[in-house]
This record gives sequence, C-alpha cells and structure tokens, in this order.
Amino acid sequence: MEQLVMLSAGEAAVRRDRLQVLMQDCGMAGMLVSDNANLFYLCGRVFAGFAYVPAQGDVLWFVRRPVDLGGSGVFYIRKPEDIPARLRENAVDCNGIIGLEFDIAPYSLVCRLMELFPGGNFANANVPLREARSVKTPSEVEMMRQSGVKHAAVYRRIPGLYSAGMTDHELQVEIERVSRLEGCLGMFRISGQSMEIFMGNVISGKNADVPTPYDFAMGGAGLNPSLPVGACGEEIMEHTTVMVDLNGDFTGYMTDMTRVFSVGKVSQEAYDAHQCSVDICRLFEKEARPGTEAKSLYAMVENLVKERGLERYFMGHRQHAGFIGHGLGIEINELPVIAPRSRHILQHNNMIALEPKFVIPGVGAVGIENTYCITDNGAERLTDAPEEIVDLI
Amino acid sequence: MEQLVMLSAGEAAVRRDRLQVLMQDCGMAGMLVSDNANLFYLCGRVFAGFAYVPAQGDVLWFVRRPVDLGGSGVFYIRKPEDIPARLRENAVDCNGIIGLEFDIAPYSLVCRLMELFPGGNFANANVPLREARSVKTPSEVEMMRQSGVKHAAVYRRIPGLYSAGMTDHELQVEIERVSRLEGCLGMFRISGQSMEIFMGNVISGKNADVPTPYDFAMGGAGLNPSLPVGACGEEIMEHTTVMVDLNGDFTGYMTDMTRVFSVGKVSQEAYDAHQCSVDICRLFEKEARPGTEAKSLYAMVENLVKERGLERYFMGHRQHAGFIGHGLGIEINELPVIAPRSRHILQHNNMIALEPKFVIPGVGAVGIENTYCITDNGAERLTDAPEEIVDLI
Repeated sequence: MEQLVMLSAGEAAVRRDRLQVLMQDCGMAGMLVSDNANLFYLCGRVFAGFAYVPAQGDVLWFVRRPVDLGGSGVFYIRKPEDIPARLRENAVDCNGIIGLEFDIAPYSLVCRLMELFPGGNFANANVPLREARSVKTPSEVEMMRQSGVKHAAVYRRIPGLYSAGMTDHELQVEIERVSRLEGCLGMFRISGQSMEIFMGNVISGKNADVPTPYDFAMGGAGLNPSLPVGACGEEIMEHTTVMVDLNGDFTGYMTDMTRVFSVGKVSQEAYDAHQCSVDICRLFEKEARPGTEAKSLYAMVENLVKERGLERYFMGHRQHAGFIGHGLGIEINELPVIAPRSRHILQHNNMIALEPKFVIPGVGAVGIENTYCITDNGAERLTDAPEEIVDLI
Repeated sequence: MEQLVMLSAGEAAVRRDRLQVLMQDCGMAGMLVSDNANLFYLCGRVFAGFAYVPAQGDVLWFVRRPVDLGGSGVFYIRKPEDIPARLRENAVDCNGIIGLEFDIAPYSLVCRLMELFPGGNFANANVPLREARSVKTPSEVEMMRQSGVKHAAVYRRIPGLYSAGMTDHELQVEIERVSRLEGCLGMFRISGQSMEIFMGNVISGKNADVPTPYDFAMGGAGLNPSLPVGACGEEIMEHTTVMVDLNGDFTGYMTDMTRVFSVGKVSQEAYDAHQCSVDICRLFEKEARPGTEAKSLYAMVENLVKERGLERYFMGHRQHAGFIGHGLGIEINELPVIAPRSRHILQHNNMIALEPKFVIPGVGAVGIENTYCITDNGAERLTDAPEEIVDLI
C-alpha cells in the first residue's frame, strides 16, 4: 500500500485550512471534489475518485483507482453512490450548503452528485478552490521555482537548435525534445475544455497574425484545423521573428515563458515594440505587490504602450487578447487575471505570467513573457533567460 | 474572410443528416453544441462558439473567435445570451426538447444555456452525437487511414531509435520527436476530464505493473504524481519488454497502436502471451463484422485467453482494465466499447482499437494494439507494422 496523501502532513494541512476558511466565509458545510487539478492540489497526486472536504476537520478520500492506496481517511468506492454511507459511518455532518465543481464537472456528473445529498443546497466549489489555489504555499512556490529554472535552461539552448531552412514546426519539435529530456511532463493543463494546446506555440512571421479560436495572446494557423493555433509548418524566413512560448510543466506546476528570436535583423519598429515589452516587465517587477489592483497594473501598462504609439499592435493585431497577465500553477489559467476590468487585488505568493506582446505585420510577434511570484519587494522573476531578440544567424 | 465550414457541402450534409435522424429518433427539436470535438465533427474545424443543429434544416454557427470566419449561417456573438434573438430572426423553431452536452459541458455552462430556452425541456445531446460519430463517413475513414499509415511509419523506425542504457523516458522522447516530424499533432483528445495523458505511454519491465488512476489498459508510475502513468525514467533492463503505445493523431483523427520491443530475449511465457494477443487480432479480423455483438467478441477473446491459461495476466496483473477494445476517431474513447456487458452491435465503418494486452510479472507488458475499420469482409487493419516482439539488440 502506498500513502494516498503525498504531501507532508503540515503542507496538506496548510492547503486544507486555507480552503476551509474560504468555505466557511461562503457558508459551505463541505465540498465534493473530483477534478484532477484540484485533487492534486489537495493531496499531491492524481487519483480517480473524490475528496470530501468538510468545512472543519479531516478530508475523506474516496478512491476508484489506482487499487493500491491507503492511509487515514481513505475509502475505496465503486461508484459515487457509495459515498453517503461512508460519510454517515464517519459521522460527517453534511447539513448545509455542499460545494460541487460547477465550472469544471460535467452537468451529468454534478446532477448525479446532487442526488447523494437529498434536500441539499448546492454552491460552486470552484469559487473557493480557485481563490485558495491562487495563493501559493512556500512549497508550491518552490515547485514553480524548479520549473522556472528548467524552463529557462531549455530556452537558453534554443539558438543551438536552429539550422537554416527550418520550418517553425521543425524548430518547435527540437525544442520539445530538449524540454522533454530536461524533464518536462508535457501536460499543458488548462481549466475547462474550450482551450486546447499541445506543448505550446512557436510562431514565425505572418503566421503570428492569424486569428485563433482560443483566448491566447498569440495566434497561428496550426498544422490542422482540429488544432488551429501555433506553428503552421512553413519555413522561418529571413528578417522575421520566431516567438517561442512553450510548456514549462516540470513539477506538476507550470511556469509560462516567452522569448523571441530572429533570422537576421528585423525592422526597428519590431525592436522598439520588443523593448517596450521588456520595459513593461521591469515596471511590473517594481509595481506589482500585495495590495496592488490588477486593473491598475493593466492601466499602467496600457499607458506605457500608448506613450510609445504601439497600441495598434498590442496583444495582437487582427485579433486582440483581453488580458496581459494571468495566474498559473497547476493550470495555465488560474487567478488573478491582469485585465481592464479585473477585480483582483494582488496577494503575497500570487503567481502571475505577464505577457505584454505585440504583432508587427510583416515581421511577426515580439515581446516577452515571464512568470512572477508576488512578494513584498515586488514581483520576483522565476524565468531567467536573455530577454532581447536573439539573432539565430 | 475564411469559410467557417471546411468540409465539402456533401460531407457536411452527410454528417448533419445522420445526426438529425438520431435526433428525430429521440424527439429532439434541436441541439446546441460547443465541445471542440463535436464542432470539429460538424464543420471540420475548431472554433470558439456554438453550433445550433435543428432536427431538420441547416446548422447555425454562433462564433466568438476567430474573428475572420464567414459563410452561410455564420453569426458572430459576444455571449451565449445573443443566440435566442438570432434563432428568432432566422425563424428557427426551438419548441420541443433541446439537446445540450450533459456529459461534456460543465454544469454552470449547461445551466446558463438552459436559460436561453425558457420553459424548455432538455436532453443529453451527447447520446445522439456519440452514436453519430461512432460510424465514420468514407471521408473520415480516409483521415484515419492516413493517420494509420504515418503512425505505422513511425513505429517501424523505433528499433533505430534505441541505444543501450536508455531510460524508458529517453526512448519515448526520441519516438515523440520522429512522430512530430512525421506530422503528429500531439493532441491526445479524450472525452471528459478524468483521463489525462500526454503523448501516450512507453512502459518497460516492472513499471508495467504499477496501477494508475486511469481506465487505460496499461499502467506505469509516470515521472510525477501529477501525471501518474507511463514511463518512470528508469533504464530499460535486459530481458524485459518495452511496450510503445503512442499518439496517432496526424489528421485530427487518431489511430491507436501498440507494439512491443525487448532488450535481449524474454521468458517463453511472455512470448506465448504476446502470440495470444496476435492470435486474438487475427480472430477479431475475421469475426468482427456489422451485426456482431461487442459482448460476444469480448467473450470469444476471453475464452481464447482462458484456453491458453493466461487470464491472470490479461489486461493487467495488479490492476485490470474492464475492456479490450474501444471506438476512436476524433477522440480516443468513442463508441463502441468491447467489454463484457457492452450493448453495442458493430456497424459498418465503426472504428475499433483492439488491445489485448498482458502484464507478465518480472518481464513487462506484451501484446499488440491495432486500429480497425469494421467492414462487411471483417475488420480491416489500419495500423500495419511488424507485430512480433522485436529485439532491440
């Protein structure tokens, strides 16, 4: 038997306690969780089954697979309908509002789980879960720091992977290989089903201006209409840029990082826009602190972009993304969001990927992305690699 | 402007007509679809938005992104609440049962969509959608055939990618690279959120017997508890097997294929079990035809395994999978399912991945997997590469 909970007892308690405070704030008596990302947060592993988190006291773990897990509070079940009897046997008080994962779990699953609590009132468990997960514990910060170090090590090797005449796809595949050998898990976890991506994007030249279905900052036609984003298989042309924005999941926690390369020199406008992005990052590093409003950071960045006369190209050209930064951790789209109408106020140990990017018609995408940890001293950069446009020839 | 519908008019009509017949059978007046896999099925591309499929007549396309799509029946919306007015303007009759994707769409989205049809009755759109998608059109068969050819070409190159002392992960990365360069899109589409996988599995030696959370036939500890399946990073040892079961999505349609390699000779029991798997495939190729019951195929296979005295190792050892074959196409887990209590009856142009596998303690996993198209002449194999255990040294 292996212990189901892979976190230290202290770490598991810190995460649970934070969630329970938020549950008490919104009057939840308990929540039933089955999303892989949320289970990984609660116990440090993915399993098939459910966690019942009461507003106070210990978590109960209801497991379907794998077959070999044990430990305190672990119960094997065949189906969700086996859960209520176990809750009663363990004298768990389920009277009150029960949280279910309204934003993640399919309608049919949520309806089935509601039947387990006859006469129950239900609320959206994703609200306190998202809030709890947006503030990383020191141990989670360490996981992200490790991902950032490996992510940056891979990016530093990119110039050595390019050879003349390569397509965007061929360059991407060589970066993917180095990244996987460095230990990248590959999984690009996105909350919800509407956004899909494989290992990330390598976008060159005019392909950067092809609109995609996804709410990502950058575009690209992709190789196939079933996944219309990113590299399109065309040769990387001279005097264009190559933007690399690839998976940083080395620990179960993802960093997000973008760097730009060029084949020969590009236009002065492209260098200027790129420098604007670097300047935005420097400004963010100083200004983003616990207590800062996300929307005021957005406004500050927007002003700088307008001062430089670059707003036409900012966050896309034919299609614009509505945000410049996003929380991340186990998934790529966590809280907080840096957007015009964001109501988030930064907290200590929020993780934010800031991605002020531009699409320069005829040249390609420019701008960088770094992952930051919000601290009392400003935003600490976890993705440390050269930020200028690196010429590949 | 690009045409939203990327299928030929005839192909789009064939798919829509098949779905509409099934909708009429269950009394649906229309359905509102937003799942990427279902949208890709209906129009040949992924977009952000919704398709409204009436029980009769043309599909209406409600698009949020990308910004540049046009064509008959295409309407841009900002939010789902913009849909009802468009339906009224187009005189679409929405009286009756409306299908929503109960098994896929999150609870909160389904509840929001229900508000668009006040006083409406609702049913599970995934039932007719799954059924329609389980029978491939000739054009879909062709997509899968192309994926199968490339998938097999990649597998034929595996012996040349191995070098002594490699870990399972290192071998997997080299296969991934060749596969990606061959055009593999990487996306491993799985319906629902509970199963996660990156590019598939390379499993060697005792790692094959490590139980996973997922309802996959084979196991493996994985590199990290956030994705506990497949390669674990250990060296591939002499006298063990390496099972390769990697992504075959080259066209938006996936084939599924498993082959086994060894480092030096393995035990006779392992060769015998592997031969049993090959024999099962030959039997299936003869017996699987339109009209055959899926459960009778399962029973036939189970009998053959018992005759050979191999049932202890069949479909896992410490943990067993409950099926030996599954439908596939846009996603890896489509209908029909070849399982003991399956109620499916095979139809012409069903696609089935048959994976009779064994875990031999101390040796590893053996057995093959092929993707088949069900025809009047039996099951046609789309994944053609040597089936014996290939020695890598």
